[in-house]
Amino acid sequence: GRPLTVIAGPCQLESADHAQMIAGRMKEICDAAGAQYVFKASYDKANRTSLSGRRGLGMEAGLKILSDIRSGLGVPVLTDVHTAEQCAPAAQAVDILQIPAFLCRQTDLLLAAGETGAAINVKKGQFLAPWDMVNVVAKIESTGNDRILLTERGVSFGYNTLVADMRSLPIMARTGYPVVMDATHSVQQPGGQGGSSGGQREFAPVMARAAVAVGVAAVFIETHEAPDTAPSDGPNMIPLDRMDRLVETLMDFDRLAKADPIDL
Amino acid sequence: GRPLTVIAGPCQLESADHAQMIAGRMKEICDAAGAQYVFKASYDKANRTSLSGRRGLGMEAGLKILSDIRSGLGVPVLTDVHTAEQCAPAAQAVDILQIPAFLCRQTDLLLAAGETGAAINVKKGQFLAPWDMVNVVAKIESTGNDRILLTERGVSFGYNTLVADMRSLPIMARTGYPVVMDATHSVQQPGGQGGSSGGQREFAPVMARAAVAVGVAAVFIETHEAPDTAPSDGPNMIPLDRMDRLVETLMDFDRLAKADPIDL
Amino acid sequence: GRPLTVIAGPCQLESADHAQMIAGRMKEICDAAGAQYVFKASYDKANRTSLSGRRGLGMEAGLKILSDIRSGLGVPVLTDVHTAEQCAPAAQAVDILQIPAFLCRQTDLLLAAGETGAAINVKKGQFLAPWDMVNVVAKIESTGNDRILLTERGVSFGYNTLVADMRSLPIMARTGYPVVMDATHSVQQPGGQGGSSGGQREFAPVMARAAVAVGVAAVFIETHEAPDTAPSDGPNMIPLDRMDRLVETLMDFDRLAKADPIDL
Amino acid sequence: GRPLTVIAGPCQLESADHAQMIAGRMKEICDAAGAQYVFKASYDKANRTSLSGRRGLGMEAGLKILSDIRSGLGVPVLTDVHTAEQCAPAAQAVDILQIPAFLCRQTDLLLAAGETGAAINVKKGQFLAPWDMVNVVAKIESTGNDRILLTERGVSFGYNTLVADMRSLPIMARTGYPVVMDATHSVQQPGGQGGSSGGQREFAPVMARAAVAVGVAAVFIETHEAPDTAPSDGPNMIPLDRMDRLVETLMDFDRLAKADPIDL
Repeated sequence: GRPLTVIAGPCQLESADHAQMIAGRMKEICDAAGAQYVFKASYDKANRTSLSGRRGLGMEAGLKILSDIRSGLGVPVLTDVHTAEQCAPAAQAVDILQIPAFLCRQTDLLLAAGETGAAINVKKGQFLAPWDMVNVVAKIESTGNDRILLTERGVSFGYNTLVADMRSLPIMARTGYPVVMDATHSVQQPGGQGGSSGGQREFAPVMARAAVAVGVAAVFIETHEAPDTAPSDGPNMIPLDRMDRLVETLMDFDRLAKADPIDL
Repeated sequence: GRPLTVIAGPCQLESADHAQMIAGRMKEICDAAGAQYVFKASYDKANRTSLSGRRGLGMEAGLKILSDIRSGLGVPVLTDVHTAEQCAPAAQAVDILQIPAFLCRQTDLLLAAGETGAAINVKKGQFLAPWDMVNVVAKIESTGNDRILLTERGVSFGYNTLVADMRSLPIMARTGYPVVMDATHSVQQPGGQGGSSGGQREFAPVMARAAVAVGVAAVFIETHEAPDTAPSDGPNMIPLDRMDRLVETLMDFDRLAKADPIDL
Repeated sequence: GRPLTVIAGPCQLESADHAQMIAGRMKEICDAAGAQYVFKASYDKANRTSLSGRRGLGMEAGLKILSDIRSGLGVPVLTDVHTAEQCAPAAQAVDILQIPAFLCRQTDLLLAAGETGAAINVKKGQFLAPWDMVNVVAKIESTGNDRILLTERGVSFGYNTLVADMRSLPIMARTGYPVVMDATHSVQQPGGQGGSSGGQREFAPVMARAAVAVGVAAVFIETHEAPDTAPSDGPNMIPLDRMDRLVETLMDFDRLAKADPIDL
Repeated sequence: GRPLTVIAGPCQLESADHAQMIAGRMKEICDAAGAQYVFKASYDKANRTSLSGRRGLGMEAGLKILSDIRSGLGVPVLTDVHTAEQCAPAAQAVDILQIPAFLCRQTDLLLAAGETGAAINVKKGQFLAPWDMVNVVAKIESTGNDRILLTERGVSFGYNTLVADMRSLPIMARTGYPVVMDATHSVQQPGGQGGSSGGQREFAPVMARAAVAVGVAAVFIETHEAPDTAPSDGPNMIPLDRMDRLVETLMDFDRLAKADPIDL
């Protein structure tokens, strides 16, 4: 298999400079470690726990920043889309459209995303069994688009808690599409702080290592230079200054996993 | 408390005649039993398990049928909306806009629905704790709309299974808004038949009785004259010819529950 | 069906006088309401969360108290057993041997209990599906004993939380044996206070009402005159001075449920 | 950290020759790969799903076989105990007493095991949060025994299914005691075949790899030369002829993990 791809960035866009800073630093880290890098950020957080949560820069300003990162740094860019209408303009600006977990069964969104011809990363819903992603895949494939990625980001486990089921990775891989482990959202505690989600940042490297050892195409990691002041997902993001060591470690495990894949 | 309201109808609209037949029959049943009746049907099923699942009649034709039932039979009508754009036209045709469970945290949809001034029934997401509905409520209230209903429809319990937590009913009632028990979706088995959802129709009366005894404002029940051939949700719908006895029984339990409410 | 049986008492025996007081008061309440009454208390708490939790009076002293209540008040008595050796002596002193939930699959314990000829109440393990109780039943039946009761006391739902699945009641009833709803343990929060279990006492009447409306043979309720100072299970016990009103209400719901049983 | 220990053997003892064969082969495999080896087998299966499940050779015959393996092959031996009475004799024959998951909160069993002075491996209950193992540990420590191991073997996730939460490993490691990943029981499907438990053998290497990458002291793997005809746990055991390659791979991941431990 190909070396691990690292999809990383801040949860939401804060400014052009901030996005450039993180993208630039992550590109250096991934280049040094031999990882493919994809920049990730959201122009809108459409389903914040509460109304007072900051939503981002909006679509027009956000897509401009994302497009500039793509052309300026020469890295592929991923962003999430929330309605069918957003798919075509977003696909002009970025390489990979991401379907949020809550929306992974919304047929019109999946079809509109597929029809752009862009690569589509679908996050498996917190309510969905991994084998049910075949139905999601079929909706996208019906548009003639087979550039699909499937992401594990945790599944509901009681209230305000997720658990990452490692079986999900090989089960989704049976579709033939690359599988991504979302190491930071799978340690989220949805609604766990009342008006916002909590998280267990310290366990994100646990999830990343475990998944890379099992064998995945990519890891998805949200990062920020100061997670505790980030406008969203701070409790589960990994500090930027720890990303170099984490990526190096993951690449070590990835080499081993790719040399000796699990035979299911 | 006021007597129980019964929100009932087919999962999706099939034709004007079919909708009229079910609405007419349910009105007779509810009138006879002393229940308030609300007709429910969807003009579009936007998140079917698989692409081949039938989606319904579409918005324009569907809203016409719903509007005709409202004016013809004189019963309030409920339907679900899936995007912010659908809210205003749907609110012209029906009395209650319903937010589907997967979409219960989509801020723009909640705001657009709230702004119509129509009553809003929010289904609690399968991934959401009951106490987190306060954040959902606050999003709608921010539009100045306080005509809100909150529905329990089951929470994720392992894969392909839901469980209905009776504690959810009094917890959501602490918001001060009416609470609805969705007796047929809470016995759904999401994705449980591979390309479609399974269900355990036989347990829907169990959930309805339990919830009415605990004390709810309304029960939500999908019904069909021939569930096994219905285009969606057949496995969990209750046959129309059993609805009269079920509604009578529920009214008996409701009288008892309303006369002696649980003191939490 | 026969009127509801109420199995109630303190979680653990504290003294002969205390047990007599609670048994006496509960008998008055049940007599007044037309309910059959069974006294319940444990002589040993063999699986306290932590070592410092009080365990009770021990077997010899405890069985003496239980036997005296049986003969003195003329009420049937239930207590739990934890090893095969305890079954025979316990069966001399009480009418119903109870198998704790954690131990519901321990074959030797089930066989020893069955062989006493006493009635056996098995609590369904927090880890067990309701349909798997048929295997538990078969172990007891193999001893020639068919005086069996099956109790729902909640199932694991994430960490430190249980959920009571109302479907469990009719599913277990398919065995043909009486089904009991344990209203106070099903609102326990195992380990939820670090060194002891928490609980949500306020929801015990919710579970009891819901179950009685669905239709059960008995409810199991732990009660204490001062739950907050009880040596175990305080957080989920119902105060003794609220039991009269609760039992009356449950009998009202029971009459309705027994007159109109759910037809599965 | 020290190199990985492999705890492996058949689920239950079938005969002296069979046990010797598996222990001998596993010792060769572990010696070749540089792993410490511990032989595991049960002399009694005390909680089979159904009564017809084979229980093993019994205590006396079983302990003789285990003791002979210990002295003959010079490998440490582990077996599980089910009552307080079994602890002392078992501790004469084996090095490590194992507390079954269902029994992990039975105080008398934990104390009796601790008092033998043998090492104690406690399987975390399917109903227990990882942070609640501190209370279990304290019960054993109260006997003056601090030779404790803690094992993850999956936690209840809906009905008939377990999920292995990788966070459990570092959380239990905070106790300071070695943590074991039970790779074969964590893919068990309790009661999943009606009268016996099912399993997903193909995912056992997934769990083992993931856990070793996260960093554990040992993996626990049940193995058999012909799992499909084994008297218990066949569906989740790994065929003996695949163990050499699996152990080699795990040692590769272990070296990497021990050289670069996760800093929580």
